[in-house]
Amino acid sequence: MEFIIARDSFIQALSRVSGFVDKKGGNSSILSSVLLQADSSGLRYTGTDKTLTVLGQVAATVSRPGEAAVDASNLLTIVKAISGDTVHCASVDGQRLEVRAGASTFRLTSQPGGEFPVTPPLDQSRSLRIAPDALARILDQTLFSVAGDDNRYGLNGAHFEQVTAADGSTMLRVVATDGNRLSWSQAPFTGELAIGRKSLVPRKGLVEVRRLLEGVKSDVEIAFGERAAVVRLDDCTIHMRLLEADFPDYRQVLPNAFKRKAVVTRVELSEALKRVLIFAQDSSRSVKFACADETITLSSRKLDAGESKEEVRMDLQGEPITMGFNGRFLQEVLSVISSERVLLELGDTLSPCIVKSTDSADALFVVMPVRLD
Amino acid sequence: MEFIIARDSFIQALSRVSGFVDKKGGNSSILSSVLLQADSSGLRYTGTDKTLTVLGQVAATVSRPGEAAVDASNLLTIVKAISGDTVHCASVDGQRLEVRAGASTFRLTSQPGGEFPVTPPLDQSRSLRIAPDALARILDQTLFSVAGDDNRYGLNGAHFEQVTAADGSTMLRVVATDGNRLSWSQAPFTGELAIGRKSLVPRKGLVEVRRLLEGVKSDVEIAFGERAAVVRLDDCTIHMRLLEADFPDYRQVLPNAFKRKAVVTRVELSEALKRVLIFAQDSSRSVKFACADETITLSSRKLDAGESKEEVRMDLQGEPITMGFNGRFLQEVLSVISSERVLLELGDTLSPCIVKSTDSADALFVVMPVRLD
Repeated sequence: MEFIIARDSFIQALSRVSGFVDKKGGNSSILSSVLLQADSSGLRYTGTDKTLTVLGQVAATVSRPGEAAVDASNLLTIVKAISGDTVHCASVDGQRLEVRAGASTFRLTSQPGGEFPVTPPLDQSRSLRIAPDALARILDQTLFSVAGDDNRYGLNGAHFEQVTAADGSTMLRVVATDGNRLSWSQAPFTGELAIGRKSLVPRKGLVEVRRLLEGVKSDVEIAFGERAAVVRLDDCTIHMRLLEADFPDYRQVLPNAFKRKAVVTRVELSEALKRVLIFAQDSSRSVKFACADETITLSSRKLDAGESKEEVRMDLQGEPITMGFNGRFLQEVLSVISSERVLLELGDTLSPCIVKSTDSADALFVVMPVRLD
Repeated sequence: MEFIIARDSFIQALSRVSGFVDKKGGNSSILSSVLLQADSSGLRYTGTDKTLTVLGQVAATVSRPGEAAVDASNLLTIVKAISGDTVHCASVDGQRLEVRAGASTFRLTSQPGGEFPVTPPLDQSRSLRIAPDALARILDQTLFSVAGDDNRYGLNGAHFEQVTAADGSTMLRVVATDGNRLSWSQAPFTGELAIGRKSLVPRKGLVEVRRLLEGVKSDVEIAFGERAAVVRLDDCTIHMRLLEADFPDYRQVLPNAFKRKAVVTRVELSEALKRVLIFAQDSSRSVKFACADETITLSSRKLDAGESKEEVRMDLQGEPITMGFNGRFLQEVLSVISSERVLLELGDTLSPCIVKSTDSADALFVVMPVRLD
C-alpha cells in the first residue's frame, strides 16, 4: 500500500476514528487500530471496538493499493505533529507503515488488514432521513438523561420510536431515562422508521454521532436492523450494535393532570440554581423549592459548610407548595432548552415535575422529586 | 465584622489566597480557611498551610470592624457565582459569615480569628529589590528543574545566591536541580541579598510567587531570615518557610572544557523533539542524537509501536558524535529560552550537555546524558 494524502483531511478522518477504537487495548491490540484500505477510489478507514464501528472514505492519491491496520492514536498524534500540507504513507516489509513528511520519518508497527474484525453488513432497504440540526437537538435534549450506571443495562441507551404529533405529522422521538429523570425529544423525518426487535441505541454510539454531526450539512440517514442501527453522515457511516434489553413503558410515569403550573425565566432560574447548588449536599444535590404566588425561594444547606437562599420571580397558578429536587438535574434540563421562559407543571410534594419550553412541544422533561429532611 | 467590597477586587484577593490554603483539609479545617480582618483601613486577608502564607490588603467600606475565618474555596466559589458589582459581608451570631448580593444570601460557617495560626514575623531590615519581569524570567528558567520527588528533600527547592557577573555587576542567581538536569538563571538587583543559615526556597512557594507576579508593575522586594524568606509584591506579601537542607555544590558538576560546540535553530530542534518523543520509551524518554557536520539526526524507538527519525540543520565544531538524552528535558530547556538560536556544548558520549542562549549569558542549563541501548 502506498498513498499521498492531504494532511488536514487525514487528521479529520483519524479524529473521527478516535472515538470508536478501544483505548484500553494498548498498542498491540487490533481493536485500538485503524484499518486503512487504499485503492483507485481513494482511502477507506475503519475503526471499531466490536460494538461500535465507523467507516469512512477520504480522497488520496494511491500509487500502490493495499491495506494495513496501525495504532489509531499513534497515527493521529504523528499526523498532527508533522509539518507540511501532505503526508506520504507506504507499507514497508509487510510489518510497518512508513509515514513521511518534511524531514520526519516514522515507522509504525502494522498488522495485516485480514486481522481486523469484520462488521456484519446491515440491510438498509428501509431508512429515514432527518435534518442534521434536528438530530443534534434531539440528542442534546436526551443523552444527558441516559443512565451512566452500567448496572442498569436497560437504561444505558436511548429508545427510538415513531409518534404522531398533535397536527398529525409523523415524528422521530428519542426517549432516555435513568430512573430519576426522563427526557424525550422529537422532530419530523422523511422515509421510513422500521424498528426491528430492539430499539435501544447505546449511549456511547449516540455521543459519537453527536460529535460527528458538527459541520454536517446534508440530511442524515438512519436505518435499523435486527441487532444493529446504522447512521450515515456526509462521508462516513456509524454502525452500532443495539442493546439487548427492553426500554420501560415510559408513558406510565408521565403524569396526566397537574394541580399547579408555574412560568419562570429560564436563565434566572438556572443562575439561581448554580449558586444554590454550592451548598447542596453532595449525594442528592437536594434543593428546596418554596413556590408562592410570585416567587420561588430556592434554598440549600450543607453540613459544616453553610447554607444559601435565592429568590426568583415566577407566575404560579395553583396553591403554594414546597418541594425538593436534585438541583443538578433541573439545571441540566434548563441548559438544553432554548426558550426565554419555561413552564413547570407540578403536582403534590412527592409528584414528578414536568419542564417544557413555552415555545415548542418538541421536547418534554420529567424530574422526580427528592424528600426534604 | 461588616463590610461592603467591590466584587472584582474580592475575587482577586481570594484567588491569591487559593494557592496557599490546605485543600486536603476539608471544610472544617482552619488551614483551608481565609482569615478576614476588617478595620478602618480596609480588609486584610491571610491564607496559610503553615509553611506558606499570603497576607494582603484590599479596599473595603467597613461599617463594623472585626475578624472571622471561613472556608477559602467556598467563599471564592460564592463570590464568583453571585451577580452585581458589590458584595455585602457581615458576621452573624459569631458562628457564620453572611454574604449577600442581589437576590442571593449565603451563610458560611465561620471560626473566630483567634483560631487562625500566627505567621512568625520576619526581620526585613535587609532586603533586595528586583524588577518583576526579571524575577519572572528567573523562575521560569529554573522551577521546571526542581525535583518533584519528595524523597529528595534537599532538591525540592531552588537555591538563592549572589554572584558577580563577567562585567563586575552584582546579580541574584537562582539554581535548581533534580540530579538529572540543572538550571541557573540570574538578573541584577538593588539593595542587599542577606542569606541566613539556609538558602533553599520551597518549589511550591516560588510557583505561587510566579503566579502572583502576573500584572505586577513595581519592583519586588525579597528578604531572607534564618528560617523563612519573604517576597513582597504590589499589595501582598508571601512568607515561605525555608527547606532545612543544604543545596549541593552545583559548580562541581558544571564542565569547564568542551570538545564540541553546536549551534542550532531553537524552534527547529524543539519541533523535531516533539515529534521524535512520540516513540520515545516511557521511562527515560530516551532520544538518540547523531551529530555530524551540518545535521543532527534525532531518532527514537518504542517497543511494539514503531520508530521515528528527524533531521535538523546544525553547525558543529568538533568531531561527529552520537549521544542519548532525555528528550523531554531538552524540550523543557528550549521552551524557556527566547533566542532564535541556541548553543549546545558537548563533551564525550557520557558527558553532560550544556545549553545556552546565543544572545544572553543570564542563564545556563545542564542535561545529563542517558545510555543508549
